[in-house]
Amino acid sequence: MTTIQSIDPRQGVAVEDVTEATSTEAVTAIADLAAGAAPELARLGRGFRAKLLRAISDGLESARETIVKIADRETAIGPARLNGELTRTAYQARLFADVLDEGSYLEATIDHAGDTPMGPGPDLRRLLVPIGPVAVFGSSNFPLAFSVPGGDTVSAIAAGCPVIVKAHTSHPATSRLAFEVLADAAKAVGAPEGTFGIVFGQPSGSALVADPRIKAVGFTGSLGGGRALLDIIDKRREPIPFYGELASLNPVVITDAAAAARGADIADGLVTSVTVSAGQLCTKPGLVFIPEGPAGDGLTDTIVKKFSDEGARVLLNERIFESYEATTPDVQGISKLEQQAFGLDDTAASGFSVRPRLFITTTGDLRPGDAEECFGPTTIVVRYGQLDDLEQTLAALPSSLTFTLHSEPDETDLATALSEKMTANAGRILFNAYPTGVLVSWAQTHGGPWPATNSLHTSVGTTAIRRFLRPVTWQSAPEHALPVELRDADPGIPRRIDGVLTVPNR
Amino acid sequence: MTTIQSIDPRQGVAVEDVTEATSTEAVTAIADLAAGAAPELARLGRGFRAKLLRAISDGLESARETIVKIADRETAIGPARLNGELTRTAYQARLFADVLDEGSYLEATIDHAGDTPMGPGPDLRRLLVPIGPVAVFGSSNFPLAFSVPGGDTVSAIAAGCPVIVKAHTSHPATSRLAFEVLADAAKAVGAPEGTFGIVFGQPSGSALVADPRIKAVGFTGSLGGGRALLDIIDKRREPIPFYGELASLNPVVITDAAAAARGADIADGLVTSVTVSAGQLCTKPGLVFIPEGPAGDGLTDTIVKKFSDEGARVLLNERIFESYEATTPDVQGISKLEQQAFGLDDTAASGFSVRPRLFITTTGDLRPGDAEECFGPTTIVVRYGQLDDLEQTLAALPSSLTFTLHSEPDETDLATALSEKMTANAGRILFNAYPTGVLVSWAQTHGGPWPATNSLHTSVGTTAIRRFLRPVTWQSAPEHALPVELRDADPGIPRRIDGVLTVPNR
Repeated sequence: MTTIQSIDPRQGVAVEDVTEATSTEAVTAIADLAAGAAPELARLGRGFRAKLLRAISDGLESARETIVKIADRETAIGPARLNGELTRTAYQARLFADVLDEGSYLEATIDHAGDTPMGPGPDLRRLLVPIGPVAVFGSSNFPLAFSVPGGDTVSAIAAGCPVIVKAHTSHPATSRLAFEVLADAAKAVGAPEGTFGIVFGQPSGSALVADPRIKAVGFTGSLGGGRALLDIIDKRREPIPFYGELASLNPVVITDAAAAARGADIADGLVTSVTVSAGQLCTKPGLVFIPEGPAGDGLTDTIVKKFSDEGARVLLNERIFESYEATTPDVQGISKLEQQAFGLDDTAASGFSVRPRLFITTTGDLRPGDAEECFGPTTIVVRYGQLDDLEQTLAALPSSLTFTLHSEPDETDLATALSEKMTANAGRILFNAYPTGVLVSWAQTHGGPWPATNSLHTSVGTTAIRRFLRPVTWQSAPEHALPVELRDADPGIPRRIDGVLTVPNR
Repeated sequence: MTTIQSIDPRQGVAVEDVTEATSTEAVTAIADLAAGAAPELARLGRGFRAKLLRAISDGLESARETIVKIADRETAIGPARLNGELTRTAYQARLFADVLDEGSYLEATIDHAGDTPMGPGPDLRRLLVPIGPVAVFGSSNFPLAFSVPGGDTVSAIAAGCPVIVKAHTSHPATSRLAFEVLADAAKAVGAPEGTFGIVFGQPSGSALVADPRIKAVGFTGSLGGGRALLDIIDKRREPIPFYGELASLNPVVITDAAAAARGADIADGLVTSVTVSAGQLCTKPGLVFIPEGPAGDGLTDTIVKKFSDEGARVLLNERIFESYEATTPDVQGISKLEQQAFGLDDTAASGFSVRPRLFITTTGDLRPGDAEECFGPTTIVVRYGQLDDLEQTLAALPSSLTFTLHSEPDETDLATALSEKMTANAGRILFNAYPTGVLVSWAQTHGGPWPATNSLHTSVGTTAIRRFLRPVTWQSAPEHALPVELRDADPGIPRRIDGVLTVPNR
């Protein structure tokens, strides 16, 4: 049996034996329970699941102090951000309860029987239903918001799917604590046994993805880790959707006019965005395109100076630490380095502490196809001359979660053209802003073409629920066999009736 | 070079050399053109694409006589159904034009900047955008509705995606004709070059799916064919969604009360549903569960008698013909046959003509996990005793596109329980109806869990468009950089603004 240990990254040593790795037999038993819970969880309906989500939200708030303390010990993320992350995670659960109350996520649609251009048509009623048990892989960098009680979990449970979480090795004690919150909430509202499950250790994650009862996978992690899970899915008899959030460079472009007008502000914003959370955010700007010429020179100098004042950061775990230390300019697609800068040399002798690191190159010396995300307080400044060179480089980069443009108000043609082009390669397009900080809301998209993610969906925001739903149509069904949302009596949710979308009066 | 021939299935011989198989180099050139057309097609907007779809619809109507004649020669489907299929295909194109006009498919969402529980939030605006060039594989059994001008093509083009169709070998001349309609419509409205492409021959289909410019695949065909394409996708650097419609048994359950009350009607309906279009419909009832006892005996006898009067049918092509002739009860999961019946022995000596064929077995003698779809005028009657045996058999079957229940009005508990259970294993649940005949409408679902399809979507009906869209969010964007549907001025489509769904007055 492998013992799952909690590591303190500030010291780089194990400080607690949390649990034993979950055996393959145990994974099967947990998946069995989840499959058993699925029909009951669907039958209990939207109102019940909204109650469950609000109980989870309350439970997280109640356990705030303990969770933040343990999570800080395991991640070195710091209480300020962890408190914010807990607030966000609790809010996220409540927001999905609101999504259930509002009900348009069901896409309830009724076509009454009648004549059609193809002859008489039957009564057809369509609704989205839960896809079945979902496996959620917690992330290293968000021990709450993208882990056990995070967005994948609450959007799947909102959809009506039992959830089995694979705890991330970086924060097993936090995972166990957060799982207790889920389990307590499930118990308090009377959810069926198997509504939530948790497994520990890498082999248990692989067994979970291979299990035929699992009907979808949510994953936040490395491109390599995601590929490995996709390979397991490829070997399943039944393919299932894989919602991976994998790797993102998040290019930022600064125009000459913006550099001239707001150089100091931009330098501030960028350095913060690169170093916040020790640069371990999937939306961290990994490439910053700055024009040649005096304005760009000034901005670059300011960034270098600010960077040099940045103190050491403690990374989440040994793998990220070693990967950071091993990343050379060449690995990141830089053929020739123009300049580099480092933060303060105040790293402790022990633990996973690293110096911030800045690389500077040019569009001519960057191999955009080889550019790779590097977790940690580092970024690459890329100087560009002609706009054509910039556009060619941008087009050749792997797709990202975000693309950011800093330009001035009169540069309308440029802003429109660049953002239109980058829409093909990113899921969120930002203007005069910084990509870190992803608001949980109705209009959010956290997703992008491969290798950012491989889904047609977002993993943050209300529409994340759609990942765990599939449509079913009832034809000529008697009223009693229909879900309540499709019966004739107005269920108080938006419905499309005979092609016309109708929203209830509130 | 391989010549692509048009085969007359009534004679079983080639009657026309249609074209040469498309070379790998030509596939690359066609994919290049499609990739070039994509941004322009997106930019031209909803109104333009609605015009294009209506031009396609008109073009199909204008070419009706020629298309039906050639399609009948290539498929032996007969002018009556082919005329109906053309009507449906033309209607489908117009319906997607209506979907574009109505605009809710865009899921336009605006969150204004403001305070949130996580602090100040930025202005976020979300819209679904086209995913990129789509490969569509035409089906054998619907030379129009699920082929070159069919549902996959028009839903993808409505979404704003260029389409490259792989013509089915069963009807290359019809494919060429239908492609001319698409190309003419594109030319008439001024669509960019590369909006539509077509390739012929199996190697060209494989090359298409492997091409990095292709961003999604729509496929209607065999489980084996679908698996082969999935294997190609698995080897791509960038995985892409595969929307396959593969195999479906479409179980039908008759209760004892229904058999007693409406035996003659049910026998009529079932035999028609099994033999219409020579049983080559993906929603054909492949398993009919009939109770033991006098009512079930009577219904079974009536079905046998009706079946024995059915004349021979001409199948679509040699592969389907050979597969039909080679299918034994054992292949279909029947361990012991109780009885069998055949239609009239009036098959012609030449061509792909076959006799209808009925197998009768019991729940005890059926291996549900081995049951397989068989294209052609054949079905399996399965007699059941206890309801438990029936439910166990149903639960062990592969998932299907449809599940049908014939019951009497007072059997409410049974109807609710069975339909609830079968919701996990089918995409459409029918009551006292027959699964063949899939209406194109807003509430339709033509899809189901693997191996019926592997998507979370439908391939028939208006929501089929969602398969070819992905979300993008603009953050703090200036008005001019936003798609018109997200600007402040009311675009006249449903939008969710600050969480509230708003529908324009009409």
